[in-house]
Amino acid sequence: MKPEATPQGIVAGSIPLFAGHPSRELLPVDDLQRIISAGWAGRGVGRYLNYGDEQGDSQLIDFLVERFNRNETLGISRENLMIIGGSTGGVGMITQQLTRPGDAVLVDAPSYRDALHIFRDHRLEICPVPIDDDGLVVSDLARMLRRLAAAGKAPRFYYVVPNFQNPSGITMSRERRGAVIELSREYGFAIVEDDVYNDIRFGGPLPPSFYELAGGENVLRLGSFSKTLAPGLRIGWLIASAERVRRFVDSGMLRMGGGANPFSAAVVADYCRSDAWEGHVEWLRGQYRRRRDVALAALDASMPAGVDWTRPAGGYFIWLRLPQSVGVDELEARAQARNVYFASGKGFFVDPVAGAHHLRLSFSFLPRVELQAGIEILGGLIAQITA
Amino acid sequence: MKPEATPQGIVAGSIPLFAGHPSRELLPVDDLQRIISAGWAGRGVGRYLNYGDEQGDSQLIDFLVERFNRNETLGISRENLMIIGGSTGGVGMITQQLTRPGDAVLVDAPSYRDALHIFRDHRLEICPVPIDDDGLVVSDLARMLRRLAAAGKAPRFYYVVPNFQNPSGITMSRERRGAVIELSREYGFAIVEDDVYNDIRFGGPLPPSFYELAGGENVLRLGSFSKTLAPGLRIGWLIASAERVRRFVDSGMLRMGGGANPFSAAVVADYCRSDAWEGHVEWLRGQYRRRRDVALAALDASMPAGVDWTRPAGGYFIWLRLPQSVGVDELEARAQARNVYFASGKGFFVDPVAGAHHLRLSFSFLPRVELQAGIEILGGLIAQITA
Repeated sequence: MKPEATPQGIVAGSIPLFAGHPSRELLPVDDLQRIISAGWAGRGVGRYLNYGDEQGDSQLIDFLVERFNRNETLGISRENLMIIGGSTGGVGMITQQLTRPGDAVLVDAPSYRDALHIFRDHRLEICPVPIDDDGLVVSDLARMLRRLAAAGKAPRFYYVVPNFQNPSGITMSRERRGAVIELSREYGFAIVEDDVYNDIRFGGPLPPSFYELAGGENVLRLGSFSKTLAPGLRIGWLIASAERVRRFVDSGMLRMGGGANPFSAAVVADYCRSDAWEGHVEWLRGQYRRRRDVALAALDASMPAGVDWTRPAGGYFIWLRLPQSVGVDELEARAQARNVYFASGKGFFVDPVAGAHHLRLSFSFLPRVELQAGIEILGGLIAQITA
Repeated sequence: MKPEATPQGIVAGSIPLFAGHPSRELLPVDDLQRIISAGWAGRGVGRYLNYGDEQGDSQLIDFLVERFNRNETLGISRENLMIIGGSTGGVGMITQQLTRPGDAVLVDAPSYRDALHIFRDHRLEICPVPIDDDGLVVSDLARMLRRLAAAGKAPRFYYVVPNFQNPSGITMSRERRGAVIELSREYGFAIVEDDVYNDIRFGGPLPPSFYELAGGENVLRLGSFSKTLAPGLRIGWLIASAERVRRFVDSGMLRMGGGANPFSAAVVADYCRSDAWEGHVEWLRGQYRRRRDVALAALDASMPAGVDWTRPAGGYFIWLRLPQSVGVDELEARAQARNVYFASGKGFFVDPVAGAHHLRLSFSFLPRVELQAGIEILGGLIAQITA
């Protein structure tokens, strides 16, 4: 497998079904250029070019607070939101401030590979809990919590991508969210809700966020412009209690460098305030939905019996379960020989063996023809192995 | 005192002698706008707007490697340099990867306040060693190392701003650098060389860097475009061994989010490759040198006997020592009543009491008239207190 996040990781002429980033034609290039030119001329450059407020671009904070209160009736105020360097910056900041080496954290199994990597960098004890089609299996979570308690351990937080999870595409049900919140209160752990795919939904409304269901209590909710605007701008946000936001804002990193990239954040703020964003997100949903449909149709048409996959209602990813007779390593080797690359399931589990018969396909990056071609090749290879 | 890094912290109508950032008229606004427009049109936007390589913008890496090998004969290659989110991003990344809570690190006394803040966030044991006009006092360092060794402790690294130190403006001599390197080898600690003021030099050449003197061995050297281009772009670099760079590049944070802000880094790369940077830096040196001269002349003219200060050959800062009869708290209160703000010495020491008769003045931000007026007011207030 190739690193998912680097366009540079893409072999020329290959079919990169692993690539979890937007394709170029989905970036609002012309609008952004127009915004930058106008912003530069109109607004003075101090905001673009000097140190910025530690909490982040003030206009962007106001825009997001208003949007969340309008769309989700979250009832947040400025004190609850700060601008961060993408959701990555948020996960790093939260992990640094909330944990010490050896602390336990809870994650889904499977979970987002690069978040696991960050938790490993911080030398945490990563405790995986299985998911099914409705998200985290609550009885398994309760069992894990009892086991940890018996060992004298209290997890610091549960990290979750609640909507269109990476890698599975699964959205956790409202009921499960409520049950997790109850357990979080009983056992005293925080919930880190990495909600970067929220706006990439193809159907009806999503369940209320953990933040909303918990009344904001002990939930840290991350969002990002990487999926709905452009990953290269590296701008996201964190919603949390006023006290938590204050503590992050007062950290040495932000005192030293100022808030999330002021230049980039000012560009994003100007773009959002121009009203361009909502229309762009709406258009993106249609684009990604069509790609999802192409991918699902190709899977229906090409996959031999014994292969299962998720049917995500949004996001970027489809998660495949291979028959027990097909190991993902063998499939990966054969696929690479045909110039098709996917994300092996092994990277998404704390114990790689748990992913030995899984893989993740991304429909965000490839045009329809290649998406279809790649999936057909995979189907043929699986059929060969099972034959 | 106001937070130094936020223009927002500046009270309207006040004289902010604390402000450690460039003033607006020193930012190359028009050139940057031209560069962005041309880059957008000419180069394709993938580089600006999508996830970037974990090591950072490839063209910027090449530019910096070539510049360092030409100007300093460092003999580095691509593998030794990565792009980071300002030197702040570097200090955070290094601290996260090289330390665990409770580890000891060595710093100058006084040292850069926000770096101390980062080390406190990581719950490190911060061990201050005095400096004099030539930088770190080597005999005190040796004593501190013996004391730590006796307690069974080995410091992880020595953090230093080697040139035009923040807050003192002092540059460490070549001889001292060599002696510190010898001790670093004997006791096995790394040297984190935060060299952000290197290019803001007003006189002859600087002593060779720790990195050069140590042949690159166990030195991590940080640099930044914040002082020589624009802080809001939040772009810097790290020079270290290929192995260290590889380990940082492979971290979860960079795997998840890609390298330092790709949009900002591409703008900086285009700016540098246009040859605009060298001329701009040369012009900046003249601007800052004149401000330094104004500040020193005002100090010579207005300070009563018993006040000492440094005469920095570059950078942003002058460090004042007040007579024992003048406490910095009292001076600060009186100055604020006159609308003059400076950085109290207390924030630059692990033990604030050590800075009770010190203060830092910045000459980077204020136009000459205000710089002069602010210093005159301070001189008058000190004379009042000592009278």
